[in-house]
Amino acid sequence: MALIEENPWSRRKEFLALNPAGTLPILLAEGDVPIVGATVIAEYLDETRGVLKRDRRLFAENPMDRAEIRRLVDWYLGKTESEVTRHLVRERALKPLMPDAAGGGSPDSTAIRAARANIRQHLKYTNWLAGTRHWLAGSRLTYADLAAAAAFSVLDYLGEIDWRDNAAARDWYMRVKSRPSFRPLLADRVRGLAPVSHYADLDF
Amino acid sequence: MALIEENPWSRRKEFLALNPAGTLPILLAEGDVPIVGATVIAEYLDETRGVLKRDRRLFAENPMDRAEIRRLVDWYLGKTESEVTRHLVRERALKPLMPDAAGGGSPDSTAIRAARANIRQHLKYTNWLAGTRHWLAGSRLTYADLAAAAAFSVLDYLGEIDWRDNAAARDWYMRVKSRPSFRPLLADRVRGLAPVSHYADLDF
Repeated sequence: MALIEENPWSRRKEFLALNPAGTLPILLAEGDVPIVGATVIAEYLDETRGVLKRDRRLFAENPMDRAEIRRLVDWYLGKTESEVTRHLVRERALKPLMPDAAGGGSPDSTAIRAARANIRQHLKYTNWLAGTRHWLAGSRLTYADLAAAAAFSVLDYLGEIDWRDNAAARDWYMRVKSRPSFRPLLADRVRGLAPVSHYADLDF
Repeated sequence: MALIEENPWSRRKEFLALNPAGTLPILLAEGDVPIVGATVIAEYLDETRGVLKRDRRLFAENPMDRAEIRRLVDWYLGKTESEVTRHLVRERALKPLMPDAAGGGSPDSTAIRAARANIRQHLKYTNWLAGTRHWLAGSRLTYADLAAAAAFSVLDYLGEIDWRDNAAARDWYMRVKSRPSFRPLLADRVRGLAPVSHYADLDF
């Protein structure tokens, strides 16, 4: 599988043909059929690959456990994204890369302040989940952990997370960071924006 | 199954215990376990009931067809909701019912205007889907049709939809409205807000 970089704000015709919503991510599956959106891709990969993975599967067997995993994926990719991550990424990481006509320019400090005020609640909830369940949806690593780690690694890169009073969340994130599948992601860099110094440290 | 009305803006303690995100809908499943969120509920109902329904199932067998259904459900419950429905419902239907402290009061005409400007695109896309596919995700009725019909019935209630130049979408919505499962919904009313005159007509 190869990674293709796309700037959704350019609204390329070929890109909109794959997904008229103009959003990422898109998986080009068998026959280059576009599978659109993170949760849709996760379900597709589980149905076509995950069911064969047994105890390494990122989803559960039981419908109620599956509902809990999906609820948490929606929490981190929906609620955390719209209350926190999207705003900080747009203002701090994307605007410097975007042309003015596409919405680039100076960061909006009001949006940054509002997003920062919301982080604490999301971190506290994650701390509670990690403290009661080991992995966020239960005793095994699932898509819920990957969704949460995606949000937190972006926020941590930007130096927006104060881990000090959230030992269970910190311990959970350290376990995610230590996994062979996650470690290469920690080497990714945003052009022109260095990560916080502890970003790639497994013990932070 | 019984329907329990909940005002999420009241943020009742018992309600937040069921869903700390404070959002609707919630299904109280076997043992009163809360299943949270429209898409999570749909997946749960399909896994526990739908698989037995054969040709009356609202989901597909094939992973790629399932991905297309999920993409469209996310379109209508995510994109249409955040670009159109949420704003018109909040400004026109909920604000008159909400206390000022919870965000009630006079409608914001800028928000209404922005939402109205976006409707046309969603209607046009639906018209294209209905014109090429009969039902929105293919040859059979699926969750994609229910998600779209949920958005459009709310907008139609509010008189926000101009069906005239979108014959295929209109014909599709007429077929949805005619179904025995959908017709009782057309009798629902928002307190203090009458629907547009053609709202419950099967031929409009």
